[in-house]
Parts: sequence; C-alpha cells; structure tokens
Amino acid sequence: MATQRLVVIGGDAAGMAAASEARRQRPNLDIVALERGRWTSYSACGIPYLVAGEVHDLDQLVVRSPQVFRDQHHIDARVGQEAVAVDLDAGKVDVRDHNHRRNYRLGFDQVLFATGAMPRRPDLPGIDGAHVYGVQTLHDGVTLLDRARAGGVQTVVVVGGGYIGLEMAEAFSQRGCDVTVVEQGSEVMPALDPDMGALVSRSMRAIGIEVRCGEVVEAIEETDVITGSGAVPADLVVLGMGVRPNSALAQEAGVLTGDAEGIVVDVRQRTEAPHAWAAGDCCESFHLVSRRSVHVALGTVANKQGRVAGVNIGGGYATFPGVLGTAATRLCATEIARTGLTEAQASDAGLEAVTATVESTARAGYMPEPGSMVVKVVAERRSGRLLGAQIVGGEGAAKRIDVFATALTATMTVEDMVALDLSYHPAFGPVWDPVLIAARKAWAAVERGESTN
Amino acid sequence: MATQRLVVIGGDAAGMAAASEARRQRPNLDIVALERGRWTSYSACGIPYLVAGEVHDLDQLVVRSPQVFRDQHHIDARVGQEAVAVDLDAGKVDVRDHNHRRNYRLGFDQVLFATGAMPRRPDLPGIDGAHVYGVQTLHDGVTLLDRARAGGVQTVVVVGGGYIGLEMAEAFSQRGCDVTVVEQGSEVMPALDPDMGALVSRSMRAIGIEVRCGEVVEAIEETDVITGSGAVPADLVVLGMGVRPNSALAQEAGVLTGDAEGIVVDVRQRTEAPHAWAAGDCCESFHLVSRRSVHVALGTVANKQGRVAGVNIGGGYATFPGVLGTAATRLCATEIARTGLTEAQASDAGLEAVTATVESTARAGYMPEPGSMVVKVVAERRSGRLLGAQIVGGEGAAKRIDVFATALTATMTVEDMVALDLSYHPAFGPVWDPVLIAARKAWAAVERGESTN
Repeated sequence: MATQRLVVIGGDAAGMAAASEARRQRPNLDIVALERGRWTSYSACGIPYLVAGEVHDLDQLVVRSPQVFRDQHHIDARVGQEAVAVDLDAGKVDVRDHNHRRNYRLGFDQVLFATGAMPRRPDLPGIDGAHVYGVQTLHDGVTLLDRARAGGVQTVVVVGGGYIGLEMAEAFSQRGCDVTVVEQGSEVMPALDPDMGALVSRSMRAIGIEVRCGEVVEAIEETDVITGSGAVPADLVVLGMGVRPNSALAQEAGVLTGDAEGIVVDVRQRTEAPHAWAAGDCCESFHLVSRRSVHVALGTVANKQGRVAGVNIGGGYATFPGVLGTAATRLCATEIARTGLTEAQASDAGLEAVTATVESTARAGYMPEPGSMVVKVVAERRSGRLLGAQIVGGEGAAKRIDVFATALTATMTVEDMVALDLSYHPAFGPVWDPVLIAARKAWAAVERGESTN
Repeated sequence: MATQRLVVIGGDAAGMAAASEARRQRPNLDIVALERGRWTSYSACGIPYLVAGEVHDLDQLVVRSPQVFRDQHHIDARVGQEAVAVDLDAGKVDVRDHNHRRNYRLGFDQVLFATGAMPRRPDLPGIDGAHVYGVQTLHDGVTLLDRARAGGVQTVVVVGGGYIGLEMAEAFSQRGCDVTVVEQGSEVMPALDPDMGALVSRSMRAIGIEVRCGEVVEAIEETDVITGSGAVPADLVVLGMGVRPNSALAQEAGVLTGDAEGIVVDVRQRTEAPHAWAAGDCCESFHLVSRRSVHVALGTVANKQGRVAGVNIGGGYATFPGVLGTAATRLCATEIARTGLTEAQASDAGLEAVTATVESTARAGYMPEPGSMVVKVVAERRSGRLLGAQIVGGEGAAKRIDVFATALTATMTVEDMVALDLSYHPAFGPVWDPVLIAARKAWAAVERGESTN
C-alpha cells in the first residue's frame, strides 16, 4: 500500500493536536498541515494578556512552531497557505500560497477540517472601519498590540460583554485607556444568568470600566460608537459578540453543517462525508445536558476533539462524548466560571428547574482574608438532577466549577453532591465547601417541590 | 405522646450538626448536648493557625457557643459535662458535672454518640511527660498556645509526620522554634505514597524544618526525644501519629464497634443498638473504593454524618454513602491533597493498579509565575477505573483533588476523565489541566497493559 496522506486544514489547536496524535499512531503517515496565518499551535486565550502587557513576548503564546513540527514530529506544517477549495471525490485541495503568491493543488487520502471560528460582525454602518477589530487569531492579537503600543488610543469601546470582550476591556483599561463596554443584554456575560452577570458588571465598574447594559449599537463612526443613547467616544473598537464556525470551505465541499452553522461530526469526529474529519471551533458539539447540537468555541474542546480525530485517523479508537460549555475567566481579582445550563438555557431546553444561590467564603471564616464567592446551582425539578452551575468570586472561586462539570458528566443529583467527600482545609475553604452548601440548598428546594417555570 | 428527648454526647462538629438538624426537623424535640470540654462546635483544624499566630483569637475558631445553641436553636448545650456511662435499656446516661463536681442522671429516648477521637499515644517511656502534647481538642490548642507564648520553648520535636504533625511543625517553626519531625516511615505524610511524600519532606526541609524519616522514637526524656539514632533536643513534644476513635463509652454501653475500633453504623448513622446513633470521629465509615470499614477522622465527614444522623433522628430520610479519605493541607507555600487509595492501599485491598505521575503548571506556561504541581493517579489495571489521586504543588494545586473525588464517587475510568469538560483559563491552568494530563497518562498505561503488582 502506498503511503497515505492526511491534509490538515488549519494549524491551531485542533488541527495540530490531530496531526500530532495521528503521527503518534502512524509513524509512516504523510501529514501536511496548512495554516493561512503566520503561526501554528498558539494560545488565542492569551491574547488579552499580550495586549495588556502581562505576557511580554508573542512567541510565548506559540506552543509549537512549524519548525518544531517538521523537525520533531515529521509533520509538514506550512504557514501562509490557505486552502481555498476541497474536492472530496477527487481527494484534492486547492491551496493559495500567500508567501509566494501562487496556487497549487495537493492530493489527500484523509482530510481534517480545523478551520476554527471567526468573530461575529453585525451588519452595522461602519463595521468595516479600520479601527474595528475582532479578536480571534494571533494576527488579531499582534495588530491590537501594535495599535495599543503606537499610542493615540485613549478611548476604547468594546461591543458585546462576553468573555473575550471583557478580557479585552480589562487589557485596555490596564493600559490606561478609558474603556466602555456596550452590551445589548440586561447584564454582561450572557453565558451566565443575569443575576450572576450583575455581579460581573459591578466588578467591572469597580475597576473603572464603564459598563452599559441594555444598549444597542447602531453605528460605528470614525471617533465614536453610536448607541441608542447617543455617541460614545472610541479611538478603537473591539468586537466581543462571540464567534461563529468558519465552516464555509467544508460546506462548499459538500460537508454537512448543522443549525449552529458548524460542521456536523459523530463521536469519532467524522463528518458525514467519507475520508473527511473535523475538529475544534468549526464543528458543532453534542451538549451533554441539553442533548442538542451546539457551537462551543473553546481551546479545551478544540484540543480534545483534535486528539480524538488524530487517534481515529491514525487507526486507533477514541470518542468525544460531548461538551458542557464549561468556561472560566478572571477579570482583575474577580473569577468567573460556568458549566452546563443556566436557568434560561434549562427553560429553553424544556427542562423545569429549581435554583439555589449561596454566598460563602474561599477560606475558613477565621483565616486572614477569607475572600468570598457566590455559587448558583440549577437542578431539575423533582429529580434533583444537576443541570448547571455558575460561580463569581475572588481567588480560588473559579476552579470549583470543575466539581460541577464532573458531577454533570456523571449525571449526579444535587442530593448525590451533598455527600461528595471533597477536600477541606481552612486555607482552601469552609468545612462545608461552597459547592456543597449550594448543592444542599438546591436539594432543599427540590424537596420543597419548587420550580422556576 | 410525651415530648421525646435526644441526648447528644459530644458537642463538636458531628454532635452539634446532628442536634441542629434534628431541631430543624422536629421543633418540639427536647435536645440536650453534653460536652466534656469548655467549647462547643469549634474548628479543630484551625488549631495550628492559632498556635502559629495566624488566627489571633480563640473565639474565632468557635462556630457556635452554647449560648447561641440555647438562644437560637433551643438546644440545651451544656459544657463541662461528661457522660460517664450509658444504659441503653433504661434510656439513661450518667453525667459528671465538672463545673459543680457532682454527678447526675439524664433520661433519653434517643442517644447520639459523637465522642470524637483521641491522639494515639504509643507506649513509650516518658510519653506522659508534662511537655508531651496531643492535638485534638480546642483545649489542647489553648494549652499549646499558652506554652508557646510563655517562652522557654526553643526546640520542638514532632513525633509522626501526618497532617497535624506537619501543620504543628510549621506553626512552631513560624514562632521561631527549631523543629524536628521524626517519622518512622520512609517519608512524611503516610497518607501519600512515598514518592509523593518525598516531595513534602523536601518542602519541609526547604523551610528550615529538620525531617528525619525511617527513624523510630524509643523514649521521651525531659529535654530530649531519644530515637534509634540518638537524642534530639525537645523543650516540647507534639504527638502527630494520628488518632483513634474515642469509642469506649459506647462500647461499654454494649454498642458494636469494628476492626478499626470505631462504632459501627449503617448508612443512616444508626448503631446496632436500638435508639442509639453515632456520627463523626468515633465511628467507622464505609470506604467507597476499598469497600471496607475504615476510620477517617475529618471535620468534613463529621459534619456530613452529623447532618445525616440529625435528619434521621428528626424523622426525615438521609444517608451517608461513604468516604474517600479526601484530605488536603497547606504547608507554607506547598499544597498537598489526596483522595481514594494510594498505590500501597490499592495493593492492600487486593486491587491491581497502574499509576501515572505528571508534573505540570498551575497556570498557562506563558503567564507570570506559572507555578507547578505533581499529580499522581492510581487506576485499576485493565478496567482503567480510577482508584485514587495525590497532588503536591504550589498555589491552586490542592483543590484540584475534588475533581478526582467526584470522579471516584461516580466510579469513572481514567479514560472517562480524559473527556471531562473542565474549565480553562490561562490564569488557572494550562489548556490540558494537570488533572487531565495525569488521567491521559494513566489511561495510556492501562492500554499498554501495565500493572504495579
């Protein structure tokens, strides 16, 4: 049998994880990875810290360079190479070589789409202005860093109060800019319920960031963002309204995409088309709680899906069971985390729920600086099955979400959770961990027969 | 029906949690709680921080005073009252009132044993010396604090390198004493495997504490501790060899105790004797992994068992499914945590295991001060079922044990764990959390068919 070739389209987390894993499984596989941009395998999550100046060197965000992939993994990683069309029947991909301004055609036996996501750009007057930036690729990060360093940026408007929007708001605030976040929802952080989002809005305001909720952007002008309430000065505009799957290339090749615009894959990351795989932000994922196909663009998921695709492409067996939408961030001293379904999402999925919200400490109350955190739990009415959790608090708060994520995966009830033998030490929490207090309160609500619906 | 009376013997975590919960369930129950010492419901885990001076006020360790129990919970909490004999058939307890030096007899319909544990005191010459202290009750804490404050304590020997021993070693070290820990095992922290314990020994030495492992104490003299290797100067000696259940009172009353000397209870915290309940450090617990009856003396377990006993005594329904032996501590900057079975315990329980140990960071590698941690995973051979985990590392390391504890409760395999949708943010960990990296490595060992046995 002739040597088989795998072409990976997209050289970031999902693509390169797949390439590396396929290499591990099959030493003789010919692997070519095509990356449109200048860098492979980087941490996009680090961009806000690069712009803020907390991370000093761009190269620190690059996990592995094309050179390392070539030398150590025997993977032909090519940057500046854009796949422009894929012919699945013929097993060919048309590539635009931006470095040498030429096109070429590459044959494959297997192809992996790892084309990522792109920032949502609403159809607004002025959205394509030169001072309007999305934050998705490392190239975006470099451009923003250059703009920040060049000076002349005093006022920044962030449109949309999601994770990346708020992280960029903090970054520019740390650089001394006057930052305004404009969020059309009732509170920032739409991944949380509004009662928890309100805690985040408050903490953003406490560090001097102007937060305008319930306000819609109508146009972007050269020095202002126009909202329903008037003009907000903006030397620079950051789009923080989330991302959508970059699935056009696959779709044009005849690969099935779903309701969330992402490529449809099975548990082994196979698309509906033969010899075609997909992983990462360009895919949809199965949500373990709502049991729907959703689009979750996160580095953790991209890495896991890439690994699973790579194992399977290499002839092994691995599955990706699904996502919970677990996510966390830190905004100055405030830690924020969520997993599973919010109250609103549970209702949307047809689930009747009870909720419990508790305020507790991050250390035993008698320790110096006990800290604080608010934990909200969403559980199914009657059964008490855990549906989701949200945490906003000080140091040590966010990582507690992982207990909820694990309990969700195991379909535990909040009653099951009360008995969990979690660790305790006065330096790490009160003797009843906030996670357990919240579960206990949620179980009490279940027992009382409550429902939010 | 006449008012029923519950007598609770022991006024710390388990006893008062039970009393409070029983009160909540049955407003008319007559509840008397007898506490031998001077304080109710305190955090014994805070004693090292009291002695170190990190916690300034003894009262901060008291969660609720007898007065609060009387006024707010309508619970007759009596301090200085020692139950000296229990007649289960007659429903009577003989009480020694240490405050007024008299005895009296109290009738009950239900009795709860919550008599706690006591430090192991090996049968050594000099063990009863006035300068030899166990650390179990708040009274012990106060006595040690008084000794530390009075001056004249320059050299301290801690016999036994478990949690409380090392915490007390650190406390006296912080007070400027020369501290030596003598541990007969090959490394400190016998709750960990020796390879992980070695990391703790190293971190103790790094803060100037002398750690002598594999050394047996032969006698305690007035100014020295005599070990197999000679004399170690000791103005004060702390016993850190663990505790055993304080179950004599129950045993004398005819209540069944088990192989670990603790009171035997069912899932509702009922003893084998009618109308008699038990909770906390005086009980044995079912270990969820080894499926054996074990003695685990921890505040978390005591609180949970007390709550379960209280619900059931009050006529409700609650169960305590068992323990994992999850525990954590912090020694200066080093965090230590464990759950489930160590490699040695797995072998002892007849389980063939594989292990994986990984070193990773507590934040993304590119962030300032990424920190470090070592995670060891023990999994069953072939099935890959998680059996236990141990963590030693810097800030943010210990609380990750809770993910393992939750996964153990759900009887997950390490392969299941690799797919866990845990949170990620550069400030809280690398994109593959150390927990997942360790699980992945353990799964690879399972796939290769390895075994430690």
